[in-house]
Amino acid sequence: MNHIIKMLKTKTILSFIAAYFLLAGNLQAQGLHQTAKTKFLTVNGIKYAYRTYGQKSGLPLVLLPHFVGTMDDWDPSLTNELAKTHLVVIFDNKGVGGSGGETPSSITQMSEDAVAFIKALGYQKVDLLGFSMGGFIGQQIAIDHPGLLRRLILSGTAPRGGDIADNTPVIENKEKKTAEQMREFLFFTGTDNGIKESKAFWKRIQERKVDRDPDTKVPAILAQNKAIQDYTAEKDASFNAIKKITIPVLIVNGAHDRMDPPSNSLVMVTHMPNAKMIIYPDAGHGSLFQYSQDFAKQVNSFLK
Amino acid sequence: MNHIIKMLKTKTILSFIAAYFLLAGNLQAQGLHQTAKTKFLTVNGIKYAYRTYGQKSGLPLVLLPHFVGTMDDWDPSLTNELAKTHLVVIFDNKGVGGSGGETPSSITQMSEDAVAFIKALGYQKVDLLGFSMGGFIGQQIAIDHPGLLRRLILSGTAPRGGDIADNTPVIENKEKKTAEQMREFLFFTGTDNGIKESKAFWKRIQERKVDRDPDTKVPAILAQNKAIQDYTAEKDASFNAIKKITIPVLIVNGAHDRMDPPSNSLVMVTHMPNAKMIIYPDAGHGSLFQYSQDFAKQVNSFLK
Repeated sequence: MNHIIKMLKTKTILSFIAAYFLLAGNLQAQGLHQTAKTKFLTVNGIKYAYRTYGQKSGLPLVLLPHFVGTMDDWDPSLTNELAKTHLVVIFDNKGVGGSGGETPSSITQMSEDAVAFIKALGYQKVDLLGFSMGGFIGQQIAIDHPGLLRRLILSGTAPRGGDIADNTPVIENKEKKTAEQMREFLFFTGTDNGIKESKAFWKRIQERKVDRDPDTKVPAILAQNKAIQDYTAEKDASFNAIKKITIPVLIVNGAHDRMDPPSNSLVMVTHMPNAKMIIYPDAGHGSLFQYSQDFAKQVNSFLK
Repeated sequence: MNHIIKMLKTKTILSFIAAYFLLAGNLQAQGLHQTAKTKFLTVNGIKYAYRTYGQKSGLPLVLLPHFVGTMDDWDPSLTNELAKTHLVVIFDNKGVGGSGGETPSSITQMSEDAVAFIKALGYQKVDLLGFSMGGFIGQQIAIDHPGLLRRLILSGTAPRGGDIADNTPVIENKEKKTAEQMREFLFFTGTDNGIKESKAFWKRIQERKVDRDPDTKVPAILAQNKAIQDYTAEKDASFNAIKKITIPVLIVNGAHDRMDPPSNSLVMVTHMPNAKMIIYPDAGHGSLFQYSQDFAKQVNSFLK
């Protein structure tokens, strides 16, 4: 009996120690996105701005942002949740935000640049999450550098030749919308709930106060827009390119994405040999932010 | 210190007691599908065969089976998992399996019969899971009896006017396929993995040895087939009927469902105001069985 009590005592103490470290880990992960230091790495003569935070063990999870997006356009409620179980790597592609050089005007070149940067960080294998244009780049990397990726997460994106909305109104902004109004229209639905979610999202991406990225400049925006237009114009009727993506893929979309309708996601899930798909209700292009907690849970389960 | 050790000891003992009950609950749930007694309830002069098993608390989860399907066509690996957190109710609709009466030849009448049976069991509110033709019935119940349902799960199904495969080859069976071969073709993909999953599924649905349902008879099959043909022939171009389903809906499909392609699921998720969708890789019509563990996890989370 004494022996059993002793064993139980040891078990309890070990459990408490484990709980302490778990708690400490969680506390540490809170707010990491808001405070992670911007670092720089020079690759092929170009200085890339990047930040890393979260758990050190396991494969890094590299995030590729949307059209015009910088590191500060990721929602902390998503990235901090991912950081609880992964090392999150965010960076600005060439000529965007805090990175130097000239933004290329093709998705293929952007993917080559991302690969060079990832390898320069010393990673031989990573998991990748691409949002919107970042998803185009993610697919291109999976096709051209299959050995580099273990798993791929694609949110609000389309295959080459996909049917997406024209970005021109966003660039010309004739209706003189503020950045917040633009985001509300593009990323969320117009329901009461959608508008509420948009406001909450906008507040969250302002939470990082220090060391924010410079805004993306016009030449970079125009180059990205050309890359997107060429990518969607290049029809691949039988979707042979994405059939080559044999790694596990998780595809996520909002049911009412105006930018990138979920019909594109359906094309991807039915042509990629190993893809799972989740579509969120009353959500638009920014469904990964609106459902950040469920999305992170799905990602963590998918990457396990 | 003694005080702390005493507290820790109490906590440990409580944890062990909790773990015991958790384990006992899980063990109890194992095999419930295989052993649950068939019961009968007479409603409007018709004797319905049904079985209930699982947790008594919370709303019952009523399951509506596919074309030709009886209670024995549910996969125990799915239903037993659901039974760990829900009271699972399976039954045979009028003229099917062990239930008496004549099978109606319209989805609307089948839904009226299902509602009468559910109410006769004494339930005022339930959650519902409809698979394939069961999903047609589920949608019809949600439209005509919105007060009866809290949440709705639809697997491998279509809206009224949806684009599904013709059942005639199944009925005529000119290729003389066995029931298992037929299931392999209709419910799974032809990949090595699909065939392996099909064999495992077939084995599982044979696990119940006692008190099995009689096979569904030809008049019932023909009546169901007419109901399905009329349901899909009745076009509703703007999908006004399903727009009325405002309760939370979870839509599930295999990426390569030959019977009921996921394009139908996309129509549902974009027209129902509060629907979430999951599409499984390398899976056909029977994705809910192939991915029974993940599916049950998603259902449990959705119903929470």
